[in-house]
Amino acid sequence: MSASIEKIEKEFLEYVKKISAYGEALSLIYWDMRTGAPKKGIERRSEVVGMLSSEVFKMSTSEDMAAFIANLSSDAARHELSDTTNKMVEECKKEYERNKKIPAEEYKEFVVLQSKAESVWEDAREASDFAMFQPYLEKIVAYTRKFLGYWGYEGNPYNTLLDMYEPGLTVEVLDQVFGELRERIVPLVKAISKSENKPETSFLYKRFPKEKQKEFSLEILKQLGYDFEAGRLDQTVHPFATGLNVGDVRITTRYDEHDFRGAIFGTIHECGHAIYEQNISKDLTGTLLDDGTSMGIHESQSLFFENFIGRNKSFWKKQFPVLKQHAPGQFDHVELDDFYRAINESKPSLIRVEADELTYSLHIMIRYEIEKALFNNELEVKDLPGVWNKKYQEYLGIKPENDASGVLQDVHWSGGSFGYFPSYALGYMYAAQLKHAMLKDLPGFDQLLEAGNIAPIKKWLNEKVHKFGKTKKPLEILESITGEGLNAKYLIGYLEEKYGSVYQFK
Amino acid sequence: MSASIEKIEKEFLEYVKKISAYGEALSLIYWDMRTGAPKKGIERRSEVVGMLSSEVFKMSTSEDMAAFIANLSSDAARHELSDTTNKMVEECKKEYERNKKIPAEEYKEFVVLQSKAESVWEDAREASDFAMFQPYLEKIVAYTRKFLGYWGYEGNPYNTLLDMYEPGLTVEVLDQVFGELRERIVPLVKAISKSENKPETSFLYKRFPKEKQKEFSLEILKQLGYDFEAGRLDQTVHPFATGLNVGDVRITTRYDEHDFRGAIFGTIHECGHAIYEQNISKDLTGTLLDDGTSMGIHESQSLFFENFIGRNKSFWKKQFPVLKQHAPGQFDHVELDDFYRAINESKPSLIRVEADELTYSLHIMIRYEIEKALFNNELEVKDLPGVWNKKYQEYLGIKPENDASGVLQDVHWSGGSFGYFPSYALGYMYAAQLKHAMLKDLPGFDQLLEAGNIAPIKKWLNEKVHKFGKTKKPLEILESITGEGLNAKYLIGYLEEKYGSVYQFK
Repeated sequence: MSASIEKIEKEFLEYVKKISAYGEALSLIYWDMRTGAPKKGIERRSEVVGMLSSEVFKMSTSEDMAAFIANLSSDAARHELSDTTNKMVEECKKEYERNKKIPAEEYKEFVVLQSKAESVWEDAREASDFAMFQPYLEKIVAYTRKFLGYWGYEGNPYNTLLDMYEPGLTVEVLDQVFGELRERIVPLVKAISKSENKPETSFLYKRFPKEKQKEFSLEILKQLGYDFEAGRLDQTVHPFATGLNVGDVRITTRYDEHDFRGAIFGTIHECGHAIYEQNISKDLTGTLLDDGTSMGIHESQSLFFENFIGRNKSFWKKQFPVLKQHAPGQFDHVELDDFYRAINESKPSLIRVEADELTYSLHIMIRYEIEKALFNNELEVKDLPGVWNKKYQEYLGIKPENDASGVLQDVHWSGGSFGYFPSYALGYMYAAQLKHAMLKDLPGFDQLLEAGNIAPIKKWLNEKVHKFGKTKKPLEILESITGEGLNAKYLIGYLEEKYGSVYQFK
Repeated sequence: MSASIEKIEKEFLEYVKKISAYGEALSLIYWDMRTGAPKKGIERRSEVVGMLSSEVFKMSTSEDMAAFIANLSSDAARHELSDTTNKMVEECKKEYERNKKIPAEEYKEFVVLQSKAESVWEDAREASDFAMFQPYLEKIVAYTRKFLGYWGYEGNPYNTLLDMYEPGLTVEVLDQVFGELRERIVPLVKAISKSENKPETSFLYKRFPKEKQKEFSLEILKQLGYDFEAGRLDQTVHPFATGLNVGDVRITTRYDEHDFRGAIFGTIHECGHAIYEQNISKDLTGTLLDDGTSMGIHESQSLFFENFIGRNKSFWKKQFPVLKQHAPGQFDHVELDDFYRAINESKPSLIRVEADELTYSLHIMIRYEIEKALFNNELEVKDLPGVWNKKYQEYLGIKPENDASGVLQDVHWSGGSFGYFPSYALGYMYAAQLKHAMLKDLPGFDQLLEAGNIAPIKKWLNEKVHKFGKTKKPLEILESITGEGLNAKYLIGYLEEKYGSVYQFK
């Protein structure tokens, strides 16, 4: 390697390490704020967050960074540098350009607007009054349209937004897979609504003491391969997983004594996210590549654990007796089959975060179609409630009675996070597609679950998905494992078979 | 104010705010590392600590800082600036000079040595072998002697070390107060050893479930005025209090099911530290002055709570029945008087951190005399174990059987923290002196404790000590409250009266 490139690379690695270290400090502060930081300290803590974040932003958009990028992305330099360094430069360049293309003044205005809009959104949702939020959302959309002008796009303006959360994903692909999915799911949802074989679910709501739910959650986490020497479980209002570094990936859950499912399936879901981050290659620490490669792939891991493991009958063959021990009495007279059917009940609902795995994607498609229309100038903000309600009627057969349980339910738009929602549905599709591929290597998947032997499944995911962190793009991972691009048929096949069995269509 | 000074002041305030913010992030990281951070994440977290600390160090010793100090400490500037800004400049200047006087290369070597020495000390203590630690301690002492050469001193070289922890304190003062104290305490300790009225203590060691100890600790914290909206209680091996900001001052405790005293008195002690920091004026946030003014004053607050409140018979008149409720059975047949005598048992012991309030100061004097001799070149490191053991025999009438329970017991010297130990004993003296002054304003002190009405006591301390943070020097606080300087007679009087009563000499 030429001495000059070597020197610049070394400086670049140090520089990025510092950005990454500040990011880790910030992650700890966020975790702490959500897990029990005393409220009187929050105001000052927010200032600390502001100072560290703006330092990270400054470093990512500095002249130093510009020089690193210029010097290290020439063909000659790329040829000399390691794969990892090249990926780091790419990531930094993408971030740099995204931020630098927006005039600083406009970006600042937008940040102020975001924080105002979120608090207005909270009030509007509380009051169930879209009109309160509308002027703010209009401004957020206007800024985002303007930014799209600065950023540019290929094919469709919305592609640029998708790319922020799911690099490489396009409207063209989404239209196709969502179209196929909708075509098969909507009739299935209708058939289930009319089914006379509905599962009995009353036993789900009996009292299950919090401490016992926690014990069972810890037991399940252990069995799933969550590494407690590289993590911990805490309690929060909204469960989440956060990776501070690969040796410290924390999860949280919540406990409802009259519905244990939130704690158990929430814990398994976050466990999937956490196992991803605990198993990213240690060599990527401090490179900014030691993170999940995209929102969709991240979600595919949490959903794989939650649904393909956690809602699988074979899994409960082993775990149902354990659950019975932790919840003395509640399930004594419940058969495994009935338990399995109950935890897989599906019915159309208005609130996305409460939706089951069958109807969930429909909630996402509605948001996707609305966002796509907004940024193709085919829809204006004032028309959102009407369009929202019409689509819920069409796809789910139900209609919100008010804005709070309709168009105002999600926080995302108040922060300008357009393009994010599709990742959730992609997670389902990726997961189903990975499961299909996994079966070729592990045809005894169900038997492994029955034996409580998760290790080979975890190892498969570690080797094929986790360890790469951000060094492989989402579609690269998918294609290298499955030999094809995104394909909805695996999710469709899985859902049709599963819900056919749960509702005893066959 | 002249426009130029105003501008520089504004920049200086922003600059210090950033140093303070990074310090707050560091404090959170330290708290987290001690309260349950997963061990596999620690190595990387230490790098994060290193990066943030070195940023703080860089900022504190930068050319920017030098310019702020130069511009803001002229008489003309001082005259225009607020008191707070003047104090900030003084603090920054002190820190700057301390760090800049040492050649950078030597400081770096010393930091490396410190961290090696601490790990060698751990091994040496484990092996109870001073010879292992000796060469490292010799180097640490040599560096410190050299640094003293750079820093300079007035009167006695050891004064410069004392000043780091207790600004304004001198060997002259310490020799006098420690001399008076020793003269009266040593005979008292001997008399107690021979006393035939020793308290019965066996009931202290009965099983007290951890959960119950925690409940009682929380109850006591509430009664003492610890603000749970500005703090939280966690569990650690070594209890501590840490102020992240005035709205977030956390404490930790430990639970021994066969000796509840560690949890209860430890919690009350840390509560004293925490109440100090929770009540520093909010205006000082982000100025680096929002901290205790010295180690000694800090310790005076924790000891005031632990001993003058927590080991006071009047306090237990109210609290003993509450304790009984939390520890069903254990104290059922114990009278208040017997309980009071038991928790105030005094006997010479080898380990400082386990010493009672009467013998504690003797442990400190031994360390003080050794440190003073070391930095006046009257003693060499190799002679430490012999001198140590001789002094323990002389002051406490007992002699360590090995280095682990003797000269190797404390971590301080491995980190070069010479001058720190005296603060602990000063804490006792300050506390007794403050208590004496407080009685003039609150003659019904004991009645307040009996009524469980701590608020007026806390308010007195808030107004006279806490709110000033670092804006008043320790002796300034002491003198403004008591009208005199450090005086050992109040502690002597308190101890003679108290232990006379506990051991029924009168």
